[in-house]
Amino acid sequence: MRELLDAVADGTVSPAAAEAELRGYATGEAGRFDAARDQRRGVPEAIFAEGKSIPQVVALAETALETTGRALLTRVSDPQFAALEDYIAETTPDATIDRHSGAVRVMTVDYEPPSLEATIGIATGGTVDEAVADEAEAVCLDAGATIDRVDDVGVAALSRTLDQLDRFRDADVMIVAAGREGALPTVVAGLVDTPVIGVPVSSGYGYGGDGEAALAGMLQSCTVLSVVNVDAGFVAGAQATLIAQAIATARD
Amino acid sequence: MRELLDAVADGTVSPAAAEAELRGYATGEAGRFDAARDQRRGVPEAIFAEGKSIPQVVALAETALETTGRALLTRVSDPQFAALEDYIAETTPDATIDRHSGAVRVMTVDYEPPSLEATIGIATGGTVDEAVADEAEAVCLDAGATIDRVDDVGVAALSRTLDQLDRFRDADVMIVAAGREGALPTVVAGLVDTPVIGVPVSSGYGYGGDGEAALAGMLQSCTVLSVVNVDAGFVAGAQATLIAQAIATARD
Amino acid sequence: MRELLDAVADGTVSPAAAEAELRGYATGEAGRFDAARDQRRGVPEAIFAEGKSIPQVVALAETALETTGRALLTRVSDPQFAALEDYIAETTPDATIDRHSGAVRVMTVDYEPPSLEATIGIATGGTVDEAVADEAEAVCLDAGATIDRVDDVGVAALSRTLDQLDRFRDADVMIVAAGREGALPTVVAGLVDTPVIGVPVSSGYGYGGDGEAALAGMLQSCTVLSVVNVDAGFVAGAQATLIAQAIATARD
Amino acid sequence: MRELLDAVADGTVSPAAAEAELRGYATGEAGRFDAARDQRRGVPEAIFAEGKSIPQVVALAETALETTGRALLTRVSDPQFAALEDYIAETTPDATIDRHSGAVRVMTVDYEPPSLEATIGIATGGTVDEAVADEAEAVCLDAGATIDRVDDVGVAALSRTLDQLDRFRDADVMIVAAGREGALPTVVAGLVDTPVIGVPVSSGYGYGGDGEAALAGMLQSCTVLSVVNVDAGFVAGAQATLIAQAIATARD
Amino acid sequence: MRELLDAVADGTVSPAAAEAELRGYATGEAGRFDAARDQRRGVPEAIFAEGKSIPQVVALAETALETTGRALLTRVSDPQFAALEDYIAETTPDATIDRHSGAVRVMTVDYEPPSLEATIGIATGGTVDEAVADEAEAVCLDAGATIDRVDDVGVAALSRTLDQLDRFRDADVMIVAAGREGALPTVVAGLVDTPVIGVPVSSGYGYGGDGEAALAGMLQSCTVLSVVNVDAGFVAGAQATLIAQAIATARD
Amino acid sequence: MRELLDAVADGTVSPAAAEAELRGYATGEAGRFDAARDQRRGVPEAIFAEGKSIPQVVALAETALETTGRALLTRVSDPQFAALEDYIAETTPDATIDRHSGAVRVMTVDYEPPSLEATIGIATGGTVDEAVADEAEAVCLDAGATIDRVDDVGVAALSRTLDQLDRFRDADVMIVAAGREGALPTVVAGLVDTPVIGVPVSSGYGYGGDGEAALAGMLQSCTVLSVVNVDAGFVAGAQATLIAQAIATARD
Amino acid sequence: MRELLDAVADGTVSPAAAEAELRGYATGEAGRFDAARDQRRGVPEAIFAEGKSIPQVVALAETALETTGRALLTRVSDPQFAALEDYIAETTPDATIDRHSGAVRVMTVDYEPPSLEATIGIATGGTVDEAVADEAEAVCLDAGATIDRVDDVGVAALSRTLDQLDRFRDADVMIVAAGREGALPTVVAGLVDTPVIGVPVSSGYGYGGDGEAALAGMLQSCTVLSVVNVDAGFVAGAQATLIAQAIATARD
Amino acid sequence: MRELLDAVADGTVSPAAAEAELRGYATGEAGRFDAARDQRRGVPEAIFAEGKSIPQVVALAETALETTGRALLTRVSDPQFAALEDYIAETTPDATIDRHSGAVRVMTVDYEPPSLEATIGIATGGTVDEAVADEAEAVCLDAGATIDRVDDVGVAALSRTLDQLDRFRDADVMIVAAGREGALPTVVAGLVDTPVIGVPVSSGYGYGGDGEAALAGMLQSCTVLSVVNVDAGFVAGAQATLIAQAIATARD
Repeated sequence: MRELLDAVADGTVSPAAAEAELRGYATGEAGRFDAARDQRRGVPEAIFAEGKSIPQVVALAETALETTGRALLTRVSDPQFAALEDYIAETTPDATIDRHSGAVRVMTVDYEPPSLEATIGIATGGTVDEAVADEAEAVCLDAGATIDRVDDVGVAALSRTLDQLDRFRDADVMIVAAGREGALPTVVAGLVDTPVIGVPVSSGYGYGGDGEAALAGMLQSCTVLSVVNVDAGFVAGAQATLIAQAIATARD
Repeated sequence: MRELLDAVADGTVSPAAAEAELRGYATGEAGRFDAARDQRRGVPEAIFAEGKSIPQVVALAETALETTGRALLTRVSDPQFAALEDYIAETTPDATIDRHSGAVRVMTVDYEPPSLEATIGIATGGTVDEAVADEAEAVCLDAGATIDRVDDVGVAALSRTLDQLDRFRDADVMIVAAGREGALPTVVAGLVDTPVIGVPVSSGYGYGGDGEAALAGMLQSCTVLSVVNVDAGFVAGAQATLIAQAIATARD
Repeated sequence: MRELLDAVADGTVSPAAAEAELRGYATGEAGRFDAARDQRRGVPEAIFAEGKSIPQVVALAETALETTGRALLTRVSDPQFAALEDYIAETTPDATIDRHSGAVRVMTVDYEPPSLEATIGIATGGTVDEAVADEAEAVCLDAGATIDRVDDVGVAALSRTLDQLDRFRDADVMIVAAGREGALPTVVAGLVDTPVIGVPVSSGYGYGGDGEAALAGMLQSCTVLSVVNVDAGFVAGAQATLIAQAIATARD
Repeated sequence: MRELLDAVADGTVSPAAAEAELRGYATGEAGRFDAARDQRRGVPEAIFAEGKSIPQVVALAETALETTGRALLTRVSDPQFAALEDYIAETTPDATIDRHSGAVRVMTVDYEPPSLEATIGIATGGTVDEAVADEAEAVCLDAGATIDRVDDVGVAALSRTLDQLDRFRDADVMIVAAGREGALPTVVAGLVDTPVIGVPVSSGYGYGGDGEAALAGMLQSCTVLSVVNVDAGFVAGAQATLIAQAIATARD
Repeated sequence: MRELLDAVADGTVSPAAAEAELRGYATGEAGRFDAARDQRRGVPEAIFAEGKSIPQVVALAETALETTGRALLTRVSDPQFAALEDYIAETTPDATIDRHSGAVRVMTVDYEPPSLEATIGIATGGTVDEAVADEAEAVCLDAGATIDRVDDVGVAALSRTLDQLDRFRDADVMIVAAGREGALPTVVAGLVDTPVIGVPVSSGYGYGGDGEAALAGMLQSCTVLSVVNVDAGFVAGAQATLIAQAIATARD
Repeated sequence: MRELLDAVADGTVSPAAAEAELRGYATGEAGRFDAARDQRRGVPEAIFAEGKSIPQVVALAETALETTGRALLTRVSDPQFAALEDYIAETTPDATIDRHSGAVRVMTVDYEPPSLEATIGIATGGTVDEAVADEAEAVCLDAGATIDRVDDVGVAALSRTLDQLDRFRDADVMIVAAGREGALPTVVAGLVDTPVIGVPVSSGYGYGGDGEAALAGMLQSCTVLSVVNVDAGFVAGAQATLIAQAIATARD
Repeated sequence: MRELLDAVADGTVSPAAAEAELRGYATGEAGRFDAARDQRRGVPEAIFAEGKSIPQVVALAETALETTGRALLTRVSDPQFAALEDYIAETTPDATIDRHSGAVRVMTVDYEPPSLEATIGIATGGTVDEAVADEAEAVCLDAGATIDRVDDVGVAALSRTLDQLDRFRDADVMIVAAGREGALPTVVAGLVDTPVIGVPVSSGYGYGGDGEAALAGMLQSCTVLSVVNVDAGFVAGAQATLIAQAIATARD
Repeated sequence: MRELLDAVADGTVSPAAAEAELRGYATGEAGRFDAARDQRRGVPEAIFAEGKSIPQVVALAETALETTGRALLTRVSDPQFAALEDYIAETTPDATIDRHSGAVRVMTVDYEPPSLEATIGIATGGTVDEAVADEAEAVCLDAGATIDRVDDVGVAALSRTLDQLDRFRDADVMIVAAGREGALPTVVAGLVDTPVIGVPVSSGYGYGGDGEAALAGMLQSCTVLSVVNVDAGFVAGAQATLIAQAIATARD
């Protein structure tokens, strides 16, 4: 601990990073950032941007970058993204910014991304499901997994689905996102022996719209699926990552 | 009209049948029976037995037999059926009684069943969907249609479904009953050019149980389906019959 | 197949159209377009514009035009429509554009529309139901059916309904759209022997608003109806078309 | 007040009746009975039997009889009714007991029923709605109104409804009970200038079953209706009675 | 009828008014206007403006003015109102326009408003309920009733309620509008013998917000109430008018 | 700790009691009993009997008695109670058993009940609310509080409520249980400065039945209330006890 | 009373304040202000600004200031706040304005704030819960309580929660606000003997979003909690204040 | 294939087993049994007994035993179990029958159970969650996994949870079943890096009862969880098995 405090004293470690290492979380202006989550949970804490003000989002990203060398944000709006870009350009201009629909990854130049020897398959039923799948993909990429992404293979035209069967079977774990009636994860899970995580998407309209029919259909599925909340791309990606990490660890 | 009243007077036509012919419905002890519905609507009025007392059910069946020569009852419980059998045995022992799960058809010996030159396909996802499909089948048979019935072809094991594709394509109209996530009508309707009527079944449990997930999934289907209420086998059968009659009429 | 590939090589057939013919769907920038649906299903794939970006909508329309000679879009917003018009004006200025509320039909000059010897009746309860009925009408027109449209005949003033009874009875199949309590399909279906498809409309307010009362009422109807989701004009039109095609085929 | 207490002292007035007159309610073993409600509200307090034990029901009936000379009970089960009959047979054998499905009226021999110069029309859609209408009828009869009851005139066979139009128009106020899609009150209210009170009935099944579709449909009605809760025959009868009393008073 | 047609021929009666008299409704550009409703139902047809375009609203108002000499519109937005004012200023500048929150009454100079010898009490729980009560008041005023309006007497400060008890008791019929928990109609109805119509208001937030708690509470009320849908000020006013008309007729 | 283990060795302390003292909970056959909850939380752990088998209930009661000298059970069915009585009669015949509707208190002869210098007021709207209030009363009595209980003072007859105002104002904290529209806690809380805890009761029927209207109404109340779940008499009693303990402690 | 009227006459007491003292409420332009609530209830009436027009909000604040020397407003929007600031600057420029997210306190210079010898703990799960907690804090501060506020201690990183345990245990009463799954109040209440009031926050998305999962979880909590509606910071603060006042009074 | 048919001919392979091998499913009296699911999916098809008749359950078990040497049934009622025991005793008396609450495993003497080198942790919140966890355990055992089961560690007494942390961390994948507020999976998943599958249990009462609060809470969890439907022990067990198989395969 003395070593760490010395490092704070001479400026090679920021106070936030030191606090994070000592207490497990860092107290910033916009709240406590769970910097130790990556180590404790295997997946980093993501900053859920929806409903937060622009200064809160930027401050939380700052704390994340200071303590872990990277930031992962979800449900980032256009104005939030613009402010974030400005902030990064000013403070750490050599950092990398990756945007996957609403999800944003920022990595400082010193950050060494992890590597994960496993393939996560991601499939979507239609064009409107892609933003949710992008969020899932961002967190899987962040963990270093290999991604095999297949879009627009909904069951209304079943041959589109069946054409991709070999790719589904080769993944270590599958994320399947679908809106409307949400039947794609059921059909896929009936044909592979990979664990499948269903992600209902808030498309649809009328009765069962906003993802409710898809959620209910996945929970009622006659095959074997586990499910995350409507549009919860981050959770699906993080859960798939945990499974992929367990597999990759066993491979070692 | 004079002729009819003369027939009532000499007993060859019952007062109920005469009232039905003159007013379009017959007033019995347990309510008004819509005896003219068959003529006006193409499908006979069915007696919905659930929630009615045994005497009410028997009295309505009596009126139906008197005015139209047959009775079609749905959601008949075991005690209601037993009472009906007893009543028929006593009053018209040569009548035919057909039971299809909860649906019951009674035909007097003089009744000339209609004939309908069209095939109605009926498919179910699993064993628990069969009682609902039986109710649909009863009303289609009552109209004289040819039935092509395929059970237990749910999408969890997709090859079971695909094996029957030719039969689905040969029907003039399809009724597809499925519970749980209710994906079968979507998959079938995506592969045929037959009109498909989806019937959600009140199986399932937890969130979306009691047929709600299946109903929502069918209403949200990315393919083209029309739908009836949960467990509404009678309505599905009657709607399929109306379509089959229109096709058969066009064939003449 | 060689012939087709030769045609691609000399430019008389686009790669997209060739892919569509060989695989059953075409892969464009904005997803897979199910070009074979028309042949497989009897109704063309419609492009559901809601929730898609303008470039996605235009790209999907482009693929549809290239592979099938026409495009049918639903739930098209004003900005999406303007972009589509611009795109058509630039690329295929002699194409025809028809707008029916949110539904849009684009036909190239070489496109030969089908003809369908059957009449589809369309009735609405009130002024607010007309946009949904327009969407249904667009798809029926696209299939070449004759349309008999009657607006504003809700049951609150029953004589408006009864005045149109003969027209309802003359149709081969009826689409009835109604919001609020949604009683019109029930009353109509009780008086005709035509198959009736009910379309609940998302009017209404308070308890049961947004089409829920209308949907529930149609599913509970004491008469024989099949139903589509709230505001699902496209599905109603497509289902009516499938029935009309079956009748027209039988007429031949 | 002295007079009243003297009457209690010499036994010509029961303590419960005295308490009721002085405080407005009587405290019995099973709770406070609102004996003054009749005077204050125009309709007597009914004893809602469902969910109460047999001794509670009997004790409340006892208090009602002691303080007002009659008792009106609703939702009385068979065992509750049997116990009540036994109690009456023992204690006031010359009292009159009237049963209208779940509603029960008990009147002592000295009780002078009120008279009300107004006609309350009561219509039902089908056989299953009759028990709820019976409950409404019981409270209207209790207030001395003339009842014009018409059963089984649901809109699925519209001529049954229209045949009774004159009777509906002659009533001072209408109660219309209907289950399933609950369209009858809407159709009736569109054709008469009588105030109409809709009573949804808990028939139906699947989506919108248990009276929800009927309730929603009546609340959404395009005509003018006021509504009571599902199966609330008592409330409908009492509200109709208050309206009838206002009319009858104006007639004087 | 000849007389009427002559009047059309010489221009003293408009074709729309003639059609309305002959058929019971007038067909305008924006739909059929139920001009005979006033006569058939006792309350005029109101034009529900929400969800209609400005030209539709103006066209319907035009038909109403032509056929009945007045127009009653509900849920009129500011832009709709401005357009209506412009239209009236241009076409019938001497007409009267009354606005009651979203409700608007237009009367031509020749229109002779009815008179109704009865008092309708209107009470609200709080400031946010007033717009809904205004809509009810508009339709009652339109029928010529006397209005006794009391605002802001919610039960959270019970003495505000009790202070007005005499006014509540003097009305012939009461309309009570309340949001949040909607207890005011229950408390009022427990204290008067007037028929009370409860109007739930879409205030409130969280669970039971948007008027659902108020609606449920009024339907569950232990006293005697009938209820209209959330924010249905027009329906409450029209139902109160029908009751008041019955009372006033009896007074004659 | 040695002392405790010695006591276990010589039998003066049971192993369960020792485990409870050392670990904070005792592991019995039917699960872990949170014996330290009383000390940690101020209220004892109650055994929720619903959904547990008879042996599980008895085993948990046994562990509670062994470790704390008393047992508090809620939602005890008749067969569960009978088995409990038999068990107590056999094993600790001198224990006291108190039953308050579904709630049961068992105290060994050595148990010294606590004393709490505070008054908890408990009011109910009607007879059907009493069982829930009994459960609340049981836990308050268990903590030694003084109870002031007033039943059957629902707002339909407001004078019954207002008559008890002084008692409501004298309590340190109030529990108010009401079903149907659940307005009683709102009216009471508007008139006193005591903290009021509302308990919705699962009476009622139709829309908002099963306590939903009451829960929603209490959550939406315009006055100041906190609320527990439907029928959660135990939670209300325990929360009132915690408040009463804080007041009593401050009194010392 | 004469004294008061004299004071009105000579202008030292405003008519509104006099009315408030005599009748318990003051009638302003925008409704009745319950000026006596503070005295009757222990907490002042707050002006719920949402859904009110700017003039209504300003007028109600004016009445509050005139009659009680301060105003407490909740759910104040930015434009409403700006108008209020302008009004105060013009009329009572030396008044103090405190803003706590949507809650606003205005105090005239003569106003003597109360003092309350008790500590109210306020905890939040995350950044998005803070605005709701701010509203609770405003009303507690208004009553003079000491506040111990701890933000951002959600259970996803349990050590953040456990680190604050001593502060939670030292409070006299706790308010715990949490969105998403709302588990924080359960975990806190399981560890302290303080009364805990849970406030569900309308964060979250998909199934159970908008605070429904949090509300349901708090109502189902296995520990002892009472709950207020979603986002009802004011109610939580007021209820905590009533409890704190009871404790402080007992301390005297 | 000839070999197989020869084996059928000489009776060493049953026709059902041959059909299963050739077509992937076997057609029995009670439906098609998906005998190939084990091979295709990694988990065997379970027979969902709820809602099936006793003969259907027995017939499906017979087909399962004939084709795969074992049967796994879920939601088996007592009468279904008794019939199954009788059937086994008669036909294959040396088979093993294991019952885990509603789940039943039958294994013929020749059946060689698989072995799976991975540990599945199973935790429950309370006694009422155990039956659901038993069902999950049955399917995991059936696949040969090692089970580490910890019961009754709900978060109301947090130390019970934290005491088991090491065991949770040592599992390869965790199943956590909890009813009421369902917070246990959230707390566990926040502390481990194992994939956690949450199983909501249908305990609880009132708002959010029947597992809805638990389901919503798990879907809203701030940590990383995937979820199955309420009481879906089988699905949780099968999904955990698929994950464990992937890990075990990687270990090889």
